[in-house]
Amino acid sequence: MKKHIVLLPGDGIGPEVTQAAKKMLEAVAERYQHTFTFESQEIGGSAIDSQGTPLPEDTIEACKKADAIFLGAVGGPKWDHLPGHMRPEKGLLGIRKQMELFANLRPVKAFQQLLHASPLKPEVVAGSDLLIVRELTGGLYFGEPSERKNNGTQVVDTLAYQKHEIERIVEKAFESARVRRKHLTSVDKANVLESSRMWREIVEEKKHDYPEVTVEHMLVDAAAMKLVTNPTAFDVIVTENMFGDILSDEASVLTGSLGMLPSASIRTDGVGLYEPVHGSAPDIAGQDKANPLAAILSVAMMLKHSFQMEEEAEQVEKAVADVLAERFHTSDLSISNGVKVSGSVLAKKVV
Amino acid sequence: MKKHIVLLPGDGIGPEVTQAAKKMLEAVAERYQHTFTFESQEIGGSAIDSQGTPLPEDTIEACKKADAIFLGAVGGPKWDHLPGHMRPEKGLLGIRKQMELFANLRPVKAFQQLLHASPLKPEVVAGSDLLIVRELTGGLYFGEPSERKNNGTQVVDTLAYQKHEIERIVEKAFESARVRRKHLTSVDKANVLESSRMWREIVEEKKHDYPEVTVEHMLVDAAAMKLVTNPTAFDVIVTENMFGDILSDEASVLTGSLGMLPSASIRTDGVGLYEPVHGSAPDIAGQDKANPLAAILSVAMMLKHSFQMEEEAEQVEKAVADVLAERFHTSDLSISNGVKVSGSVLAKKVV
Ligand SMILES: CC(C)[C@H](C(=O)O)[C@@H](O)C(=O)O
Ligand SMILES: CC(C)[C@H](C(=O)O)[C@@H](O)C(=O)O
Repeated sequence: MKKHIVLLPGDGIGPEVTQAAKKMLEAVAERYQHTFTFESQEIGGSAIDSQGTPLPEDTIEACKKADAIFLGAVGGPKWDHLPGHMRPEKGLLGIRKQMELFANLRPVKAFQQLLHASPLKPEVVAGSDLLIVRELTGGLYFGEPSERKNNGTQVVDTLAYQKHEIERIVEKAFESARVRRKHLTSVDKANVLESSRMWREIVEEKKHDYPEVTVEHMLVDAAAMKLVTNPTAFDVIVTENMFGDILSDEASVLTGSLGMLPSASIRTDGVGLYEPVHGSAPDIAGQDKANPLAAILSVAMMLKHSFQMEEEAEQVEKAVADVLAERFHTSDLSISNGVKVSGSVLAKKVV
Repeated sequence: MKKHIVLLPGDGIGPEVTQAAKKMLEAVAERYQHTFTFESQEIGGSAIDSQGTPLPEDTIEACKKADAIFLGAVGGPKWDHLPGHMRPEKGLLGIRKQMELFANLRPVKAFQQLLHASPLKPEVVAGSDLLIVRELTGGLYFGEPSERKNNGTQVVDTLAYQKHEIERIVEKAFESARVRRKHLTSVDKANVLESSRMWREIVEEKKHDYPEVTVEHMLVDAAAMKLVTNPTAFDVIVTENMFGDILSDEASVLTGSLGMLPSASIRTDGVGLYEPVHGSAPDIAGQDKANPLAAILSVAMMLKHSFQMEEEAEQVEKAVADVLAERFHTSDLSISNGVKVSGSVLAKKVV
């Protein structure tokens, strides 16, 4: 198969982990006789520095022609003083919205070797394997008005959804649950929000199309509790944009391996943006310390979700698991009797 | 001092724990020669059953004349099928709004004897002692419009704040921090929401009035992570209504003693509503199993925040700590070599 991939290295450790992701993709191409072509574009702080905007037109154009996008990370203290519309995050929000990447998939899986670094007791967290399906292009993030009023004495933000936006994310979540453990938890605040009551109704409608999936509704405050007390009770969680932002970050620290977590942001036709969860980590940038495994696992998600290359994806995941089993790791992790290596060495071992 | 207290026993275990709270107040009145008068009113599901509304006019009238209100709990599966405006929670939301109880104080403190029941490792959670100050009468909970539009193809909720609403909760949080460990974490989503940017500006303005308090700003997703990975890093957290709902419930499970947590909802003149965090627990209602300690600690908050009875409040807190030190507990807790007793026996030991 031929695929064109846009690389957006971004800021901080973004370029380093993007390098690892690219090497992994090249190795997959060679082994399975695919042709992957690559193109790099700027986004975030580095785009602000060189082109004066966090999301240059060239970047948008390139992404629109891509079969998949890999993003390293955006942001850093260097750009924190800039006004809202010039902040690195705007690049990320812009690309999500312009490409209609409405489905954010955030898997969290406990790795046995890394569990000791979890803040949770091993008996609470062991065996956790959940997927948060977060709506990514609607809700409070993009609703209008979002402004000051009456001479600055009032302020308003808007949580707005179109029915079809809720329908497509709920469908995506049911599809995900169907190929996993077949349990879906829909998270909302239906005792307060009208948007949540509509969300709940849509889940109730759609569930008839997926009779093999069991469904439960949970209030967002209860979900925030249960993620900590009983993470293994979840399979797939589906929720709106802001709730998903909060819950997926909460979930990301449960297993003690934030540096291992991949993410995907996908649109209906399968085109997607893949990104490690860890962020730009400016404090360790340029020192070859960054853990490349989240980037490499994001490549596995790309192979699976955008290219339908199931076998290739599994091989990549297995390669990561094998390297951990051999106790190699970067300095963000600790493994008992482990061998600490640099980011590039660890990437080479996986690839 | 003379004080008039309205009791709202509510649903489930609400009446049992309200009984314990009342006994505690009577004992305090006797020991310190105060005169506390009591009046019971209905709210929530029991009010729906007897009067057809979750918040009867008589209840509102009585609360408006009270010096303080004690609420047991509202809600239960019996009323879950009712339409939105007839749900027990509406009683709670209504009383908060009508009384302008804008400041919700939710302390979370690790009890050494109970830590083993925490989902977190003891070394992560030990020593946690934080206070969440949640804005309670604005934001997404009460903003208009909150409705379907365009033949039900769209839905909207509104996150609205008036400047003075943010100012008064931020001031309350600074006041709280000043008499604690003098550190304030203001939680927002300033990289996305205009209301958060205004919130952040107001915190920056107000901090000059409290030079002894150190202030940090944290994004809500980062706060959801840090509560789990490093709860001892927090002293006072201040945040808007919905973020506060999520974070305070997340925080409530950290120390393994949800059955111990009190809360206060206060207005500017000090009148307040005091309520255990645990909820109505319909599964154990009427069996004398409910833990009365959260209700009794809520009484301590009432004495302190509504009646300025510092010494009395400390005595109540000490009585609770003493009973735990003697290893008495209800069945929701476990203490090594502990003595399991009924709710009423435990209450008697404290009082
Ligand atoms: C950078 C920020 C705008 C973004 C979000 O809130 O969506 C981030 O937290 C994320 O989850 O990808
Ligand atoms: C019952 C519900 C409306 C309420 C809220 O969301 O405020 C509850 O969760 C709380 O935190 O007191």
